[in-house]
Amino acid sequence: MASSPTDFSSWAQARREQVERLLEALLPDAALPPSRLHEAMRYAVLGSGKRMRPLLAFAGGELLQAPDDDVGRVAAAVELVHAYSLVHDDLPCMDDDVLRRGKPTCHVAFDEATALLAGDALQSLAFGVLADAPMKAGAPSQCRMVKLLAGAIGSRGMAGGQAIDLSSSGRELTLPELEFMHIHKTGELIRAAVVLGAQCAAQPAPNELERLDHFAKRIGLAFQVVDDVLDAQSDTATLGKTAGKDARQNKPTYVSLMGLARARAFADELRREGLRALEPFGDRAQRLRELTDYIVLRDR
Amino acid sequence: MASSPTDFSSWAQARREQVERLLEALLPDAALPPSRLHEAMRYAVLGSGKRMRPLLAFAGGELLQAPDDDVGRVAAAVELVHAYSLVHDDLPCMDDDVLRRGKPTCHVAFDEATALLAGDALQSLAFGVLADAPMKAGAPSQCRMVKLLAGAIGSRGMAGGQAIDLSSSGRELTLPELEFMHIHKTGELIRAAVVLGAQCAAQPAPNELERLDHFAKRIGLAFQVVDDVLDAQSDTATLGKTAGKDARQNKPTYVSLMGLARARAFADELRREGLRALEPFGDRAQRLRELTDYIVLRDR
Repeated sequence: MASSPTDFSSWAQARREQVERLLEALLPDAALPPSRLHEAMRYAVLGSGKRMRPLLAFAGGELLQAPDDDVGRVAAAVELVHAYSLVHDDLPCMDDDVLRRGKPTCHVAFDEATALLAGDALQSLAFGVLADAPMKAGAPSQCRMVKLLAGAIGSRGMAGGQAIDLSSSGRELTLPELEFMHIHKTGELIRAAVVLGAQCAAQPAPNELERLDHFAKRIGLAFQVVDDVLDAQSDTATLGKTAGKDARQNKPTYVSLMGLARARAFADELRREGLRALEPFGDRAQRLRELTDYIVLRDR
Repeated sequence: MASSPTDFSSWAQARREQVERLLEALLPDAALPPSRLHEAMRYAVLGSGKRMRPLLAFAGGELLQAPDDDVGRVAAAVELVHAYSLVHDDLPCMDDDVLRRGKPTCHVAFDEATALLAGDALQSLAFGVLADAPMKAGAPSQCRMVKLLAGAIGSRGMAGGQAIDLSSSGRELTLPELEFMHIHKTGELIRAAVVLGAQCAAQPAPNELERLDHFAKRIGLAFQVVDDVLDAQSDTATLGKTAGKDARQNKPTYVSLMGLARARAFADELRREGLRALEPFGDRAQRLRELTDYIVLRDR
């Protein structure tokens, strides 16, 4: 799976279609009982989303020439987790949001209990996908992947970040506290996406995995800083989710703590740090470089 | 780990203490941030509960002389999943219950958002526990365990059963529909407990796993029938959870559909079927037999 000369947007489009087909096949058919739950799971996952995490998994896998089918499963698993986290995050007892990816949130389109269970079942499905049929990297690698994902999304990872986010509403956070929160809430799953993609390779060198992990840390944070910038300057229609909400809820953001100009400069600094971590990979990291620019320079 | 001559209640007590120590060690320290989330996770898991699923896992493992440490991890993982399901099940958008295991439910003691995240993180932790350090049965077996657990608790398992349960409130269910619901809602995790325990053995014979699975199916259903009987005839203090609630919510139960006497007889029929499935194991299945009686003859 050598890096092809395809331009980035064609590559990204082809990878998005690939993960969409996979997710379509992995999610239970809505005709199977319990139908309403399956409909909610499919609603939460299919047909929209930037698929940033799958793209990162594919780019991490390509860098180490990992088998395409295995990386596809990893890409689908991280997207299932991402979708579960959005469904739970939008619930009334959490962020209480009504719009996501340009359509009503899951609990609005269905009901709270169904959304809760859909998120729960999406999490289980993600682990099932990682552990299912043997991967070329071998069963010990698959166990390491399950463990890595579990750590990345548990109480010391994504779920922990959400807990800190909740407790921060309405009070002052310092910049280090804000960074700590985002490193967990969004950063850990983004790191996991890149590293899991690379772990599909037969013999990923530990120092290469470490370097990728360092890259992914900077990019995960950059992603969040850019999110805050976009939230502050966009309207809801462009964003596909409720804009300006964090500020209205008095939640600290990079923009509220740093101002718009410094937040933009910080995102660019993180971008440059990320790119530096990729230098030793040379041309092999081209897709990750393109993704970095895509993440930092996006407008929604 | 040959079957010792210890009587059942001493054995069960020792196993409960063993799984308690394990859970205590596996759950993040409440001093670690985010502390409130970790407190909620520990609150939901530690210090109470009959530990029926861990006992079933231990008994399944002992039958095939599986390594004690590995079975302990499996036992802890299924209990973490069970605790997560109770926390989510008790939420206001689900059963809206205030009492569980003799104390306030997690969202009452903490808050809804924390309870939601605690459940989410407990699920992740369970998968991490299965996939963590290598087990003697080997990494391919561990992958099979992760896959089995994911299937047992996902949309075609426990979460699916909860979805069917919700949709049944206030309408008539037939007995086959009620059975379908319970086979998923409680039966699948009980099956998983027994089979996962046995899968820790070096070379579990497929026909032995099948027989155990058949046993566990009957016992899982018996457990629920007995739950319904106890719910109909107990008071809240004895039960440690709100008694008579299903009937008040107009939820169908075995007692409402069959009457108390026939429900009791049905539980006993399931018990005898389960015991029959154990016959070929001879003395090796002694603990599973004792557990069967414990499940069917318990008073809370």
